Amino acid sequence: MPTNPDMQACIDVCLRCYQTCLSMASTHCLETGGKHVEPEHFRLMMACAESCRSSAHLMLIGTALHKHQCSACAEVCAACAASCEEVGDMDACVQACRACEASCRKMAA
Amino acid sequence: MPTNPDMQACIDVCLRCYQTCLSMASTHCLETGGKHVEPEHFRLMMACAESCRSSAHLMLIGTALHKHQCSACAEVCAACAASCEEVGDMDACVQACRACEASCRKMAA
Amino acid sequence: MPTNPDMQACIDVCLRCYQTCLSMASTHCLETGGKHVEPEHFRLMMACAESCRSSAHLMLIGTALHKHQCSACAEVCAACAASCEEVGDMDACVQACRACEASCRKMAA
Amino acid sequence: MPTNPDMQACIDVCLRCYQTCLSMASTHCLETGGKHVEPEHFRLMMACAESCRSSAHLMLIGTALHKHQCSACAEVCAACAASCEEVGDMDACVQACRACEASCRKMAA
Repeated sequence: MPTNPDMQACIDVCLRCYQTCLSMASTHCLETGGKHVEPEHFRLMMACAESCRSSAHLMLIGTALHKHQCSACAEVCAACAASCEEVGDMDACVQACRACEASCRKMAA
Repeated sequence: MPTNPDMQACIDVCLRCYQTCLSMASTHCLETGGKHVEPEHFRLMMACAESCRSSAHLMLIGTALHKHQCSACAEVCAACAASCEEVGDMDACVQACRACEASCRKMAA
Repeated sequence: MPTNPDMQACIDVCLRCYQTCLSMASTHCLETGGKHVEPEHFRLMMACAESCRSSAHLMLIGTALHKHQCSACAEVCAACAASCEEVGDMDACVQACRACEASCRKMAA
Repeated sequence: MPTNPDMQACIDVCLRCYQTCLSMASTHCLETGGKHVEPEHFRLMMACAESCRSSAHLMLIGTALHKHQCSACAEVCAACAASCEEVGDMDACVQACRACEASCRKMAA
């Protein structure tokens, strides 16, 4: 595990956002239908899950290049949070994305 | 998040084993060298990280086919735990792999 | 790259099926809607993409444990192909899944 | 599959670089040892494999946010190519990384 507590906190937040986006897309969104499976929204959910997963991965590897990945991830999280707010009834996802965006921006600085 | 508490527990254990294998391979093993970077051992560490990551993913998607993935994951975890015991000084990894193997075998049943 | 030509062929087929499932789910299925976003079908598409991606990964790592992953992947491909046939208008996906299932069964033997 | 031929070309180049980095790390580097398993070099190989894999994934999903991921990937590819050149005897990896860096920079523009 990383010796830097800020990095471990960011890994935790990324893996939390990854789990929230993937499971909400695959259960809540698919089962609710309508706006929840609108292509652009659903793609953002899938893209956010992947970005967060990959950011955690680069931090676990322990290379300084995680900064670039965390920066990209923050952009995807911001877009996913905005889309979830617009769709509505996606509070858990909005919160996970906002927390991940903030944490990734710090790691990217 | 899954409504089945056993499944969420297995996801947690898989993501813990994924993190432990990947970070120990990339820090402890690479920095220690010697037996820790012997090809077969290091490949098992990388393979175990991937299998656990993928098992968590299929459970988060929420399809019943996670059983096959969890079954495969249990085999990789068992092999990785045995290799870590032989190399030595890998206790955190042995424990994470054994816990993941047991949890995945239950989910595969 | 693997020295075993059968293994490289299976990696190619897995990465082809991964690409086909993920891109068809994210474009064709989301844009068509209706049966194409029925939860069980869409989950299978996502699960199949992940299984194929992970099988290719274990073969690229070069550990003998890829057999277990390929065996799991064959099951997911078979289920995804059947679901795509039932939904209809998914020929590229049916073919990619059937080819991947056959190749993975050979590697798992 | 993406209808944009430039994007499909970038996906192909990313998946090629992913395969080259992962398989060379796991076979050539681990079997050769010495400088090839020096922590910083090996971490870059693993990070590059993951970044390329994730860039292909976001392009396959088909969201415009792939730009951020491709930009991050180009940085990781550049660093990996430089490290492989320094280590030496890694020509296939240098070429794959340079090609991926160039293609990702175009997609990120």
